[in-house]
Amino acid sequence: MRSERTLKITQSIIYYKMEHKKKLSIICFSGDFDKLTAAFTLASGAAAVNNEVNIFFTFWGLNAIKMKKGRAFTGKGFLARFFGFLMGGINNVPLSRLNFANISPKLMNYMMKKSNVATLTELIDASIAVGVKLYACEMSMQILGLTMDDFIPEVNKEVLGVAKFLDISEGGDRIFI
Amino acid sequence: MRSERTLKITQSIIYYKMEHKKKLSIICFSGDFDKLTAAFTLASGAAAVNNEVNIFFTFWGLNAIKMKKGRAFTGKGFLARFFGFLMGGINNVPLSRLNFANISPKLMNYMMKKSNVATLTELIDASIAVGVKLYACEMSMQILGLTMDDFIPEVNKEVLGVAKFLDISEGGDRIFI
Amino acid sequence: MRSERTLKITQSIIYYKMEHKKKLSIICFSGDFDKLTAAFTLASGAAAVNNEVNIFFTFWGLNAIKMKKGRAFTGKGFLARFFGFLMGGINNVPLSRLNFANISPKLMNYMMKKSNVATLTELIDASIAVGVKLYACEMSMQILGLTMDDFIPEVNKEVLGVAKFLDISEGGDRIFI
Repeated sequence: MRSERTLKITQSIIYYKMEHKKKLSIICFSGDFDKLTAAFTLASGAAAVNNEVNIFFTFWGLNAIKMKKGRAFTGKGFLARFFGFLMGGINNVPLSRLNFANISPKLMNYMMKKSNVATLTELIDASIAVGVKLYACEMSMQILGLTMDDFIPEVNKEVLGVAKFLDISEGGDRIFI
Repeated sequence: MRSERTLKITQSIIYYKMEHKKKLSIICFSGDFDKLTAAFTLASGAAAVNNEVNIFFTFWGLNAIKMKKGRAFTGKGFLARFFGFLMGGINNVPLSRLNFANISPKLMNYMMKKSNVATLTELIDASIAVGVKLYACEMSMQILGLTMDDFIPEVNKEVLGVAKFLDISEGGDRIFI
Repeated sequence: MRSERTLKITQSIIYYKMEHKKKLSIICFSGDFDKLTAAFTLASGAAAVNNEVNIFFTFWGLNAIKMKKGRAFTGKGFLARFFGFLMGGINNVPLSRLNFANISPKLMNYMMKKSNVATLTELIDASIAVGVKLYACEMSMQILGLTMDDFIPEVNKEVLGVAKFLDISEGGDRIFI
């Protein structure tokens, strides 16, 4: 069965795969400083080596793409606004462990700068610069009372539900962070 | 090399892929209200657009499929029963952040209802209705002293180890939540 | 279109896939007792059924492969050493929930032994024994001021960035824990 014919066919498969750009899609659910750092490191790194990278921000993850970087009463409705205030923005994201009243993310940032490693906000900028596509989850936006105006302009105007997300990420890897 | 022959072969690959239903398998490790919501949103949404969806509940995730929805001394052995009580059921699952002594999941539920978004228990029911298959992890059941009788009847009677899970999820995406 | 020709081609694809060993790559970001247990259960189980398994340890996950199993001032620089002390080693990893000042991991270990389930350190040893390959994340090492000397000797001497990781895990599943 493993004739020359088979060989040719496997070659064609390999060519077929090469013609299609590799794709990586991250469901960014977490809003922790350390996990966001992991997500954007992976995203910018993969895009740098020519992968198509999509990040789909949902729930706490939306903190990474909010326009207001500090605590603010964003969203519609009293509860949503209050919850939005508690969640804060990218400058308030906590460390998932050993957070010590939000001192640790600042320490971590300092350690990253000292080690000549890109900080979280630098990683987000880098990801956008290398063409990582950013999407917001429709359902989370509804629950938290957020609109596209609450996000940075680089976020895709098209909000996504599960079906659209599956469509966009089809044929590539899907990672939940 | 990119002759008509190659084109035909790539077409066949596409046909081959279309004949096979897409598959999504979720390892649901987390027992947090927000992460469970993400898991069941993804599961029910993917099943609705004709994916084969399997959820493999392990450790804290088992809380989602327990028969008793509140705190109860389930399982065998004193420690297991005590731990089972602390873990609780689907009505006790905490928010992964800003939990405030379990007030937040209730607030979140209220916000979900107000936004006309399905609540967690509705999402679980919807997932079952659209044919998402539920499995329990054998090892976690052993550690926590749980038996099939502790779970809702929709859970597959076959408990899974790693090998069986890999077998069932083979050829599709695997996501850890 | 679904002629015998197509059938033969799909067969070749299946042969092509069979010739290539299945591959599973875990990004082990978490340093929680329960999540590490999940990671090493999956890794050792997959390797046991003949998968190529790579674990890429990053940030908190590095705790699993540190040479010193307890708290120690590892790393370079005051902050890194202090943070390293707080992080501890494999004997200090907390439960992600209901941790109760680190009593729970010990209880959990006891429950695992009583249920004849492999404990975390046994799972790590088993993973190494069945050929799971361990890698450390370059950037995390830089931030935390760690060197290869701080890790157990079974860790691959080649430290990985994102590009290398994508390369090694290419063609298989990628799971973030």
